[in-house]
Amino acid sequence: MHERKKSLAGVVPPIPTPFDRQGEVNHRALTDNLERWNKYPLTGYVVMGSNGETVFLSHPEKLAILQTARKAIPSNKWMIAGTGCESTRATIELTREAAEIGADAVLIITPHFYGGKMTADALAGHYFSVADASPRPVLIYNVPKFTHVDLDAGTVARMSEHPNIVGIKDSGGNISKIADMVRMTGKDFQILAGSAGFFFPALAVGAVGGIMAMANISPQQSLDLYDLFRNGLINEAAALQRKVIPLNAAVTARFGIGGLKAALDMLGYYGGPVRSPLLPLSDGERETLSTILAEAGILDADSAGLSPP
Amino acid sequence: MHERKKSLAGVVPPIPTPFDRQGEVNHRALTDNLERWNKYPLTGYVVMGSNGETVFLSHPEKLAILQTARKAIPSNKWMIAGTGCESTRATIELTREAAEIGADAVLIITPHFYGGKMTADALAGHYFSVADASPRPVLIYNVPKFTHVDLDAGTVARMSEHPNIVGIKDSGGNISKIADMVRMTGKDFQILAGSAGFFFPALAVGAVGGIMAMANISPQQSLDLYDLFRNGLINEAAALQRKVIPLNAAVTARFGIGGLKAALDMLGYYGGPVRSPLLPLSDGERETLSTILAEAGILDADSAGLSPP
Amino acid sequence: MHERKKSLAGVVPPIPTPFDRQGEVNHRALTDNLERWNKYPLTGYVVMGSNGETVFLSHPEKLAILQTARKAIPSNKWMIAGTGCESTRATIELTREAAEIGADAVLIITPHFYGGKMTADALAGHYFSVADASPRPVLIYNVPKFTHVDLDAGTVARMSEHPNIVGIKDSGGNISKIADMVRMTGKDFQILAGSAGFFFPALAVGAVGGIMAMANISPQQSLDLYDLFRNGLINEAAALQRKVIPLNAAVTARFGIGGLKAALDMLGYYGGPVRSPLLPLSDGERETLSTILAEAGILDADSAGLSPP
Amino acid sequence: MHERKKSLAGVVPPIPTPFDRQGEVNHRALTDNLERWNKYPLTGYVVMGSNGETVFLSHPEKLAILQTARKAIPSNKWMIAGTGCESTRATIELTREAAEIGADAVLIITPHFYGGKMTADALAGHYFSVADASPRPVLIYNVPKFTHVDLDAGTVARMSEHPNIVGIKDSGGNISKIADMVRMTGKDFQILAGSAGFFFPALAVGAVGGIMAMANISPQQSLDLYDLFRNGLINEAAALQRKVIPLNAAVTARFGIGGLKAALDMLGYYGGPVRSPLLPLSDGERETLSTILAEAGILDADSAGLSPP
Repeated sequence: MHERKKSLAGVVPPIPTPFDRQGEVNHRALTDNLERWNKYPLTGYVVMGSNGETVFLSHPEKLAILQTARKAIPSNKWMIAGTGCESTRATIELTREAAEIGADAVLIITPHFYGGKMTADALAGHYFSVADASPRPVLIYNVPKFTHVDLDAGTVARMSEHPNIVGIKDSGGNISKIADMVRMTGKDFQILAGSAGFFFPALAVGAVGGIMAMANISPQQSLDLYDLFRNGLINEAAALQRKVIPLNAAVTARFGIGGLKAALDMLGYYGGPVRSPLLPLSDGERETLSTILAEAGILDADSAGLSPP
Repeated sequence: MHERKKSLAGVVPPIPTPFDRQGEVNHRALTDNLERWNKYPLTGYVVMGSNGETVFLSHPEKLAILQTARKAIPSNKWMIAGTGCESTRATIELTREAAEIGADAVLIITPHFYGGKMTADALAGHYFSVADASPRPVLIYNVPKFTHVDLDAGTVARMSEHPNIVGIKDSGGNISKIADMVRMTGKDFQILAGSAGFFFPALAVGAVGGIMAMANISPQQSLDLYDLFRNGLINEAAALQRKVIPLNAAVTARFGIGGLKAALDMLGYYGGPVRSPLLPLSDGERETLSTILAEAGILDADSAGLSPP
Repeated sequence: MHERKKSLAGVVPPIPTPFDRQGEVNHRALTDNLERWNKYPLTGYVVMGSNGETVFLSHPEKLAILQTARKAIPSNKWMIAGTGCESTRATIELTREAAEIGADAVLIITPHFYGGKMTADALAGHYFSVADASPRPVLIYNVPKFTHVDLDAGTVARMSEHPNIVGIKDSGGNISKIADMVRMTGKDFQILAGSAGFFFPALAVGAVGGIMAMANISPQQSLDLYDLFRNGLINEAAALQRKVIPLNAAVTARFGIGGLKAALDMLGYYGGPVRSPLLPLSDGERETLSTILAEAGILDADSAGLSPP
Repeated sequence: MHERKKSLAGVVPPIPTPFDRQGEVNHRALTDNLERWNKYPLTGYVVMGSNGETVFLSHPEKLAILQTARKAIPSNKWMIAGTGCESTRATIELTREAAEIGADAVLIITPHFYGGKMTADALAGHYFSVADASPRPVLIYNVPKFTHVDLDAGTVARMSEHPNIVGIKDSGGNISKIADMVRMTGKDFQILAGSAGFFFPALAVGAVGGIMAMANISPQQSLDLYDLFRNGLINEAAALQRKVIPLNAAVTARFGIGGLKAALDMLGYYGGPVRSPLLPLSDGERETLSTILAEAGILDADSAGLSPP
């Protein structure tokens, strides 16, 4: 029987999908990366989120990735599978397959192609159908930067009443809306910051954790930020929050997944190429990135091969 | 050997994908609809455009739809397959499969999920790779309403230099940009209006035709609009253009694909259900729609089962 | 008694406000420019539109400009005063003053600072109050590029029922909406293209003229475009439309009012400086601009001091 | 000699401008409101901010309002005058007049009408010129909701180097950017939250106070929020932050200035009418508003005439 995890509190990296030079999924690199991340007290992983170049993966590739990840992720850590598709039926099908493979939860992005028709009713219908059919708890994924759909707090509250919808990753970063979602949902509904750029303020208004790209390249600082907040060291948390903003930006909006992968390469993980039409970083961008990593204090130690705790 | 068609001038409906009540592709309805449209002097069809709910189709469904459509579309009409995916490799793969099945051309939507990284270089790289690999001519598909990516005239001009990129469907409707694309591209590059809402003005500034949802429900008025313009009957063309605007809006922005399908049902074609998360029209919307069809002068005649010419 | 002009058909330049090197209004330059433009069969002028840097003018400056303009504009040409302010009361006050000075009509920009509250009812209330109080006919001015408010066709139609609201300058350029406004308003309601970038297609769908920055620097081509259309020379009109797009862009979106004024200087009119915070053109921009003027065929002739017809 | 205040830490209401039933400025009501607010330990007031319907005020009205406010505001509280205009010269003129009347600082909104040309250089030029000329310290006012201009952290940091630019009111609410501004500016640069919707998280990342509409209707809760944070009572601050979100929304985005004024009326202050084109609240809106005030716990106590501390 599947053991039900409850709390998503803490730090969860949404991991990238490693490709080899021919553009095929590099399963060995995926395993190696996970083994290295496993040494940190991370709550779990999102496999096939937007950082995973999921929109570039075929259906067979997705299943294979989930299988590899399941083997590499210990049972005490969440494996959250990004199984949201544009259609409700495809989402349900992939959700069931992911559960079969052993995912602990699924992260369902808002459908968005027909954005003008993604009314609150259309979206609630989608999430309720998926939650009804899913053998695992469902997390909502709100990421307006990519979807141009932005769930309001009231719609999230309405969805949160479904017993199988247990939380939300919110990457929009509207801190007032995050606070309002905390206000409008029950205490069991778990709100997770979708970016390290607002992790501390999100925790401060009631989020329980973060699913954030930066946790891939700097799990320790991500965990430190969480711990400082939990221990009431507000000024220290604020200082660390401010310090990591350029680092976070470098692997999100500024340089995108190409930046995230290049940073991983610099830090001794496997980053590797992005799939086209994404472009690799230029030499100049790569240099800027390495300066940012150094200024954040994570390049020397890690690149020298120092082991994590 | 595949016979090369050259001119896309005229009217091309981007056809919807019929589903049965269980949500499966209804191939019989697809054939029936095409046989009825075939009676009109349409230039061809787009199969699996955004009106085709393509983002809701699995890969096997796509291949099956193309096969059915190929059988029903006469060889003197273009079968244009919407084969654009988010990744370059998936786009190339599906493009080759579509060519194998007999598509005459492919319509490639701009990748858009990672919109912030879809720079002119990233997009040109994508289109050039696809055009290099495609056995059939490539049409660009610019549809900012859905993609939130909007190609500028200069980038289109740059792409138009590739010998296998033969035109663009522009659904943005910026008429000044359409004129500018005509100015900046060679005389063999074919610009097609992506909506009947600006078909006549697009023709007036140099577009050669239109790929537009309205052509599904009112092929005759679409063709009339084209012919009036071609015959220099400018005032009559303008009057017809103005008249069909509510009709066009009803099956595009206002009621979406649900509206298009409901209109087809009213007109004796097979419309059928949309796939979730899209919602069917409410009763009130359906009534409004039927009034609009009647006011446009297309409901009585067609619904009475009168045959097309 | 004030002679009532009826038709706004044709070409109307929205003139810039000349400033001297100290930044004061240069009335002599204003008069000189108008005298030169008066040699063309233009329908009239907009004084203090958005090209007139009106938001930078004090109330006394506005009155003085209207007085100077009135003296320089012959009575058979429209003097249209831009008297729209954010508040209804200030708009009415300035409208009355402009009428007193001799304006033939007023152009009223949509209030926009509190854009989220500028509902159809709020805007209709504003326009009806102004139209009730105005001694001169009112033109609506819709310019979403500056206001981020965009009137829909239905609201314009509702406003057009007021007997003193006689037309609209639409700078949004949504050609489908322009056609729809023609459809939804009476035959006496006059729709004017707000930019030369879509002048010909706007005429084609039923606009009667254009109020456009390009008419300041190239009145002849603007008039030619109008005449070609009126004479049914559609292909020639389309060709000229396409040709002038870079010219139009240079004095609107691309280089802004600084570009318009620099172009006027190059062409022998008085352009002069813009007011801060607008910046003057850089040397590189100035060079690009001069190339564009030359390519449009207007720099040599005019700069050599050849007189207009 | 003018006594230089230094710290803006704490709570500052941006006060509305009271109008009588004829739409004229009601100076008596302005004085009465201020006298009531003076009983709270507020840091000061913004007079003629965007809540002050400043865009609806004539120049003489502005001077008169400043004079009335100066008399009613004790010398130990900041009087911050909103003197930003579209042009640099008008801004400087009004700034000098405000200083003459006794303003302690000026709040300068980003010019925005020609938004496309409001580059970092244009804006920096504006702020530097104003700061050079201003006899009082300058606060930047970034409010993208109204201006559609959004200063980035780098540009703010650049501006913060001017000795007379002492802080910013940021109403955009991008909490990551607020943290980044703290990081990039010196310790004397004061960042103020522009809305109560993100007051606590802004303080948490390093803001020193807030200039926020809610402080007009609930100064005590605004001050409590500040004090809880300052005293390290993070959970309590978060709880209060969440609680006041509907209240804050009601007097900002949801019901606008009409909502703010209606709430003041309900609470025994003078609210009065808004100027057209703003519309008064409907009866239904008014009822909703009163429920929100009651749920926030501020209607009964205050409306019963209980005195502030």
